[in-house]
Amino acid sequence: MSDVKPRAIVLVSGGLDSATTLAIAKQQGFACFALSFDYGQRHSSELAAAERVTDALGVAEHKTIHLDLGAFGGSALTEACIDVPKSGEASDEIPITYVPARNTVFLSLALGWAEVLGAQDIFIGVNAVDYSGYPDCRPEFIKAFEQLASLATKAGVEGQPWHIHTPLIELSKADIIRQGIELGVDYAATISCYDADVRGRACGLCDSCRIRQAGFAEAGIEDPTKYR
Amino acid sequence: MSDVKPRAIVLVSGGLDSATTLAIAKQQGFACFALSFDYGQRHSSELAAAERVTDALGVAEHKTIHLDLGAFGGSALTEACIDVPKSGEASDEIPITYVPARNTVFLSLALGWAEVLGAQDIFIGVNAVDYSGYPDCRPEFIKAFEQLASLATKAGVEGQPWHIHTPLIELSKADIIRQGIELGVDYAATISCYDADVRGRACGLCDSCRIRQAGFAEAGIEDPTKYR
Repeated sequence: MSDVKPRAIVLVSGGLDSATTLAIAKQQGFACFALSFDYGQRHSSELAAAERVTDALGVAEHKTIHLDLGAFGGSALTEACIDVPKSGEASDEIPITYVPARNTVFLSLALGWAEVLGAQDIFIGVNAVDYSGYPDCRPEFIKAFEQLASLATKAGVEGQPWHIHTPLIELSKADIIRQGIELGVDYAATISCYDADVRGRACGLCDSCRIRQAGFAEAGIEDPTKYR
Repeated sequence: MSDVKPRAIVLVSGGLDSATTLAIAKQQGFACFALSFDYGQRHSSELAAAERVTDALGVAEHKTIHLDLGAFGGSALTEACIDVPKSGEASDEIPITYVPARNTVFLSLALGWAEVLGAQDIFIGVNAVDYSGYPDCRPEFIKAFEQLASLATKAGVEGQPWHIHTPLIELSKADIIRQGIELGVDYAATISCYDADVRGRACGLCDSCRIRQAGFAEAGIEDPTKYR
């Protein structure tokens, strides 16, 4: 039976959002091909988490592509000399943890693998609510990428539609967690912290940790995260 | 004076087209940041050519990003088990040498570097005449990428326009060569062959060699390519 399932690429970072996205893609009946990136991020414990998440949920294949975005510099997530902000202050500005063109690069590579696999579906766990400061997490960006995909590819030229699925885009962190728990996601396997230590323990202070903590609190679900 | 020049990213493969594109970008007054990719291509002698080309024409900086597109498979240019076609027959079909989503991936990475540099201009030597089989060499693809860039980036959100320059897109190979010669490009430094040997000598038989040979012949310019 698994042969008849449509294939989808799912971007899996090892975080809470992408784990939930993978669970949703599986529930929707896709054979899931998980794609992770080793992109010079400071929090490389994410990659170990991506491995745990794909193992726990089950995927057809999991690839990790090495990609040196750090060579370009410009973000607190890839440059060792920029401090990860821990102020906890909300702001309307684009955060310093923004990695230039990251989702554009990740979706482009997903598109390449999808073409080889004959897949027309890509899942990405972007969220416009909690991370509204990132331009490449907005619905209009996703729509533009779908349009690009239809022009960039053999399948698109032949008239097959592309679907970039963003099942979390309008959800609050609490709703994401509730949905994931329902689908059996083990959030202890995931890491959200921008500054986790080598043993995968979260700092509890960065923006990503704060949003995650608030999400569990709001959902009324015990936070399984290991803090140091 | 060089500080006041606007910055541009120029994709440089080491081939004839991208060398000409770099010369045009320089002539237009840009400070050029050359970007090459080591993407598992069989013809890695291209990368040595990219080095020669950027040295000869002069650039502000030259980065080569390692990117394992071969991990996805699917093209004669990255998979060792697919033969490079040498039939010389023209066809309306998308050629087997098409690398899935290649220009989408390359432009995305150029976009990331451009954001870090504060550049709003990217040059790519795509050509819709000789390579009409590749979906990601068409003007409508380039337009869609420009649109995506304006939505994907901090600069775009702030209202600064992106320009993806494709100075060769409507030119014949002969016209490209004529323009490059006028701008002082040394085509002996470039490699077009899909199957060059380790010493950088071209096969003279693949589609890319044939198009190049015909271009020099039509332009009435002696072909400086080293054949084996």
